Amino acid sequence: MSQPDPVTSLPGAQYLTEIREQPAALRRLLEHRAEFTAVAEAATRRGPGVVRMVGHGSSDNAASFGVYAFGLLPGLTATRDSISLLVYYGAKLDLSNSTVVALSQSGRTPDVLEYVERARRGGAFTIAVTNEPDSDLARAAEAVLPLAAGSEHAVAATKTYSNQLAALALLAGCVAGRCDELAGLLEEVAGQLEEHLPEFERSASAFAVPFASVARMFVIGRGPEFATAREIALKLLETCQIAAEPLTATDLAHGPIAALDPLFPVWSIADEDETLGAVVDATERARAAGATVVASGTASASLLDAQYRVPVPKPRLPLLAPLLAVVPGQLFAGAVARAKGLDPDKPRGLSKVTLAR
Amino acid sequence: MSQPDPVTSLPGAQYLTEIREQPAALRRLLEHRAEFTAVAEAATRRGPGVVRMVGHGSSDNAASFGVYAFGLLPGLTATRDSISLLVYYGAKLDLSNSTVVALSQSGRTPDVLEYVERARRGGAFTIAVTNEPDSDLARAAEAVLPLAAGSEHAVAATKTYSNQLAALALLAGCVAGRCDELAGLLEEVAGQLEEHLPEFERSASAFAVPFASVARMFVIGRGPEFATAREIALKLLETCQIAAEPLTATDLAHGPIAALDPLFPVWSIADEDETLGAVVDATERARAAGATVVASGTASASLLDAQYRVPVPKPRLPLLAPLLAVVPGQLFAGAVARAKGLDPDKPRGLSKVTLAR
Repeated sequence: MSQPDPVTSLPGAQYLTEIREQPAALRRLLEHRAEFTAVAEAATRRGPGVVRMVGHGSSDNAASFGVYAFGLLPGLTATRDSISLLVYYGAKLDLSNSTVVALSQSGRTPDVLEYVERARRGGAFTIAVTNEPDSDLARAAEAVLPLAAGSEHAVAATKTYSNQLAALALLAGCVAGRCDELAGLLEEVAGQLEEHLPEFERSASAFAVPFASVARMFVIGRGPEFATAREIALKLLETCQIAAEPLTATDLAHGPIAALDPLFPVWSIADEDETLGAVVDATERARAAGATVVASGTASASLLDAQYRVPVPKPRLPLLAPLLAVVPGQLFAGAVARAKGLDPDKPRGLSKVTLAR
Repeated sequence: MSQPDPVTSLPGAQYLTEIREQPAALRRLLEHRAEFTAVAEAATRRGPGVVRMVGHGSSDNAASFGVYAFGLLPGLTATRDSISLLVYYGAKLDLSNSTVVALSQSGRTPDVLEYVERARRGGAFTIAVTNEPDSDLARAAEAVLPLAAGSEHAVAATKTYSNQLAALALLAGCVAGRCDELAGLLEEVAGQLEEHLPEFERSASAFAVPFASVARMFVIGRGPEFATAREIALKLLETCQIAAEPLTATDLAHGPIAALDPLFPVWSIADEDETLGAVVDATERARAAGATVVASGTASASLLDAQYRVPVPKPRLPLLAPLLAVVPGQLFAGAVARAKGLDPDKPRGLSKVTLAR
């Protein structure tokens, strides 16, 4: 019998390995550019109409980014559609002028599969975006786009999530007739990610130990970074057992801010874009309420009064910042989990494929 | 100088008074039925297209209900639209075939106002649903529907929220040509609410004291009750400083369940409708993870293993259950706040009108 590998048998080794694989996974996705072009052309021929995105967990978080990718690149209305409205309640919606983008890493999420079957019968153009092109979901949809992230073993998704963001950006870019441009921009992001990973690992683990005693957090962002806020909060919930809630910067002021105190920190994602003022304001309110603040995002330096800082480099297209900004959060969650003696590869009560309805 | 009234000067007296006013507020809204009929006819003449709802905080929670009201009554796609996409990023969306429903209790929320101005210029039919028909928002929109909830003084919204649900149900019913029917069903709900309020007050305050030491909770529901889950979580955040996060029953299994333990209770809203199986499954998972469970909703009896139970009567139209199911949560939040020595009328750091962008 061989000994277990001394590195990969450490708690969270798989999770960390998959975080580090993200630049390579992103480049692998870009090799499928021709498929994205073809699917975008098919969607455009059908008249893309409303883009209805469906998914659970990380996939639904990626859909939050899709709202901005489709809204800003081809100028289409994209929505995180209600799965239960169609699947459970059988609502009589007119889907004939819709494009469905079904997001499931495993391709096995039961109600996402059922949504696609119903939407296809209802006349929608259905696209499965999945890491398993041989799955039931892929067979149910009219078109399939591979995530090409490679096998993911840690329960907490990382490279499949970032490739979902990239897939949505590339698809939206292709629908806008800007396929090559987006592919080039995403290629640059892969390079930036590779270059900055060591720095992310340092900055995100530097303050993990004091956070081992934290029970609750808010993660705030606005615009495309609301997806990042949702995904970082989910990583903290599933790997660190921290009650982390994502909020838009503006919604923080509409009630939740009353719960803040010095034991209730806020991870704030500020980007150099049109929402910066709103995020700066919200972060100042959080500081005034006594919360410890972690400043992140491409404009982390604008959050003057933060106790911790995890800077993120600026991509050429600001829309793509979430591909970079999520990574320090993934790494931070892993570092806090280790500080708490938890194994981010195998969170309690979870399995890799969730078949819950 | 007169003495302060001995009842209304107690902490949370205003909040409790406004909760109790909900049946009367609901009946007051129904007196405006003719306005709803007229606005629905105008929307239908314009071709209602996609219904885009916008709001923050409680208003955004009400919009979660609107997705189901419009989806199930007239069969229209309704979406909680991204405010930042239009207002901050200036996305070039085709709004000419859209109906905008702008939800703001004060009529003063800055970016909701700006959204309406831009959407109206873009050709959308804009409707303001507000408690202040003389507000900037009301003037900016093409049509106004009053909430008619009467003045609300407690910072945490109660009767304005339930009247937002009723306004969305009534408007959706009128667009479906079922105005009188919906008005009659809502009238019945007002009667049920009046009848059950004393029982709600007993059942929801019976276990407030043990929850005074609770720091974090999940509130789960699915379908129309996801709005209730969001609103109860917000009441707990703002009045009790509990980090309460709303989740759909299905999303609980996609990660967050790993954070549960016996000190992390779950408020579960189960209705006698097509999502019951999903909510029962999720609640059983939460119990298996060791969480204390509060069973509520019209099918609370189906959550067999719950430690606490707050039953809700069944309305004749299941879609309207959220108007009843939110009330025990409002009362519970008030009772926990008092048990913690907090004043639900004046949560720390909040004011009645939120002008944050």
